[in-house]
Amino acid sequence: MADKNLVEQITNMEQDFAQWYTDVVKKANLCDYSEIGGCVIFLPYGYAIWELMQKDVDKRLKETGHQNVYMPLLISESLLQKEKEHVEGFAPEVAWVTHGGSEELAERLCIRPTSETLFCSHYANSIQSWRDLPVLYNQWCNIVRWEKTTRPFLRTREFLWQEGHTAHATAEGAEEETLRILDIYADFCERALAIPVVKGLKTDSEKFAGAKKTYTIESLMHDGRALQSGTSHNFGDGFAKAFGIQYTDKANQLRYVHQTSWGITTRLIGGLIMVHGDNNGLVLPPAIAPTQVVVVPIAAHKPEVLPKANEIVKALGDIRVTIDTSDKSPGWKFAEHEMKGVPIRLEIGPKDIANDQCVLARRDTGEKITVRIDGIQSAINSMLANIQQSMLAKAKLHMSNRTFSAITLDEMKEKLEIEQGFVKAMWCGSEECEDAVKAATGASSRCMPFEREHIHDKCVACGKPAQSMVYWARAY
Amino acid sequence: MADKNLVEQITNMEQDFAQWYTDVVKKANLCDYSEIGGCVIFLPYGYAIWELMQKDVDKRLKETGHQNVYMPLLISESLLQKEKEHVEGFAPEVAWVTHGGSEELAERLCIRPTSETLFCSHYANSIQSWRDLPVLYNQWCNIVRWEKTTRPFLRTREFLWQEGHTAHATAEGAEEETLRILDIYADFCERALAIPVVKGLKTDSEKFAGAKKTYTIESLMHDGRALQSGTSHNFGDGFAKAFGIQYTDKANQLRYVHQTSWGITTRLIGGLIMVHGDNNGLVLPPAIAPTQVVVVPIAAHKPEVLPKANEIVKALGDIRVTIDTSDKSPGWKFAEHEMKGVPIRLEIGPKDIANDQCVLARRDTGEKITVRIDGIQSAINSMLANIQQSMLAKAKLHMSNRTFSAITLDEMKEKLEIEQGFVKAMWCGSEECEDAVKAATGASSRCMPFEREHIHDKCVACGKPAQSMVYWARAY
Repeated sequence: MADKNLVEQITNMEQDFAQWYTDVVKKANLCDYSEIGGCVIFLPYGYAIWELMQKDVDKRLKETGHQNVYMPLLISESLLQKEKEHVEGFAPEVAWVTHGGSEELAERLCIRPTSETLFCSHYANSIQSWRDLPVLYNQWCNIVRWEKTTRPFLRTREFLWQEGHTAHATAEGAEEETLRILDIYADFCERALAIPVVKGLKTDSEKFAGAKKTYTIESLMHDGRALQSGTSHNFGDGFAKAFGIQYTDKANQLRYVHQTSWGITTRLIGGLIMVHGDNNGLVLPPAIAPTQVVVVPIAAHKPEVLPKANEIVKALGDIRVTIDTSDKSPGWKFAEHEMKGVPIRLEIGPKDIANDQCVLARRDTGEKITVRIDGIQSAINSMLANIQQSMLAKAKLHMSNRTFSAITLDEMKEKLEIEQGFVKAMWCGSEECEDAVKAATGASSRCMPFEREHIHDKCVACGKPAQSMVYWARAY
Repeated sequence: MADKNLVEQITNMEQDFAQWYTDVVKKANLCDYSEIGGCVIFLPYGYAIWELMQKDVDKRLKETGHQNVYMPLLISESLLQKEKEHVEGFAPEVAWVTHGGSEELAERLCIRPTSETLFCSHYANSIQSWRDLPVLYNQWCNIVRWEKTTRPFLRTREFLWQEGHTAHATAEGAEEETLRILDIYADFCERALAIPVVKGLKTDSEKFAGAKKTYTIESLMHDGRALQSGTSHNFGDGFAKAFGIQYTDKANQLRYVHQTSWGITTRLIGGLIMVHGDNNGLVLPPAIAPTQVVVVPIAAHKPEVLPKANEIVKALGDIRVTIDTSDKSPGWKFAEHEMKGVPIRLEIGPKDIANDQCVLARRDTGEKITVRIDGIQSAINSMLANIQQSMLAKAKLHMSNRTFSAITLDEMKEKLEIEQGFVKAMWCGSEECEDAVKAATGASSRCMPFEREHIHDKCVACGKPAQSMVYWARAY
């Protein structure tokens, strides 16, 4: 395997997961720190992962009738204040622009922490009749939230995301959209990122500021902490009433629209690292790996090696392949591309060439096999498909092994502290009990899952009759 | 042709070009105004044009070895001030962030008006050896410049662009890159946007703040005013010295890098409108038209019409086609899609179907032809190619008809005021003469073109020996 002395060691993930994460982010060249605390620089490798995620999600959104738009970066203070719960949720963490050049602005403007208010203001002007509905808009943009504590990708003061904002004639239309998007997110996470998720509904205290309902997909990291990986909100007609977004229906009646919003962000890159990474660095699922195959020529000074290596690169067609012709040693290259999580390393040297074969090494399992050069494209395609599947299966197994049930608060504490993972527990539905569990365990409610289970009759906190089951976890 | 009574009229372009422009922007649904003066909302149709531009340019940049990254939105005041000319150029028009939530920031931050300082700060940390060079980075992002007067797409307080920032070992390397990019921009404008350009060098007073040389592509709008359509700057080692960006060369000597930066923006959408549009609205070149063909079924209630129309849509393969099945009249639809500049309208009704044919109407010329349904894809592909070519030819002819030479200032004034367009004139090279021409004519120097001409011996302003020929125009 890789020559470990040639690359700087990263911290062992079992000893210090947080430091391991930071090491991988830096050593795999995903991002760099900037001069502004809490804002990172997306380096080419990290940004290329985001571009592949965008391409996949954008395609899914367009196929389901969504259109991309672009709203302004800045929101006036008065516009932000139009919906009461919304402004209370976001005002404490927005960045305020007070001057344009040397002039003080008449009203200060915030940098969008999310764009509900902008879309609503536009919808109030542009939606008139039932013929205009549904409006299915999405935008890819940057967002600023002035967070106190930050970590690369997981929580940064500026991040990138897509935010969808839709308006519908009926409550049913909005609810269908909210769930359709949640399914798209879940399917994207499972198929592209190889990250299994739990789909469910947020409790009232965890829902989005101004939403009637917030649906979420929750995933479990290697260390047993949860990551909220995407949310989809049903606003009902709350924003419509605050902003006056009305349409004339077929019977010529004036009605309020029903709205949704939903988003996924660059924090999913953090999820990828923490679900799949190992002590050799990043492990990327082929679907979103910027480089799916790296060709490492062995004894590249021998005249037959580079021509054959280049011939193989050409034979790989649409597969995202690079060839490492740098003057570093093969061992160094092995370690470097393992750190970057490249799914397959293809080794080719004089002996291989003499036998018309080459070596494929899988990043996820370390397995090495020898294959015929003839038919190399289909061998690699099948290995890529296999890696994608087995990474998902491994992540599913991890999640299932780390999902526990608890009847009492003490059991919950024990599972969360010692075994670490999701803990399922029954809940009476009161905010007091939710707060009590939070205070006792340091965990937060992640969601009430769609797949309902009845694990006990009584609330884990108060012992009164339970209404629903909740997933709990310590979370990023 | 289109039923003009069914859509709201737009202003006649020959009577009031500025109002015509605003009308087209609104009626073709390209953008809408936002609550923040000078910031527009990119609506789906306008944003789709930008996405197609991005896709084309991004491909060209990746093919020439450039990598996408993403730098932070915010720049500290002290970082902005590191290069003297640069801060003088931009400080008067930046938006300042002074508060994060309720706390005043220790140092105020500006929203990027351009990102040289951020890239330089990163390069100072990340570039060490000749092995690291060249660094060929690009980013797609939003930019804020607090302009006093704004117009949709042409000059907005927030706009979208790509900005490339590269670092090279040698002065020659930087100069080659600067020119390579200018060629990419010019080729993109001609081939994709069907907009011919003049390539040249900016005079010292018109170059980018901090640049050693600024190259530009200049295009000519229908009204005879120029649009700066893309710029490519060679910084020499000026920024490298201000930021301390040094590398160790092969002989182990410490050297400063040589840098470039370059960008194109959403103002090119404004260029598209003003070069190709007519009194029926937008006219889009097929290469960047979100819809290349719109199918309008005639007598759609007849049972054979919609199935046949859908069959044709399927037969068109990769061509970007939509079918208008709304309940508006055909005349209304014709006018609407003409307003949006769709290159080809395909009409299909019962009589056509009976004859196994359909009608194709070209947006650029208004020409209508009848074609066999059998082989429709190749007929349309060839018409699209033809439209693309003939739109470029028409724009070239316009530019050539509107490019004049002048020996005296009076001649210049006359050409600029009465005939309107580019005026070529000789120049001694002094800033005083450039200012004098500017003051006398209201035009600005656009560039010293690569294709040199000697139209006279003496400077148009002072009569001293001329050094170069300059393109002048009133500009957007």
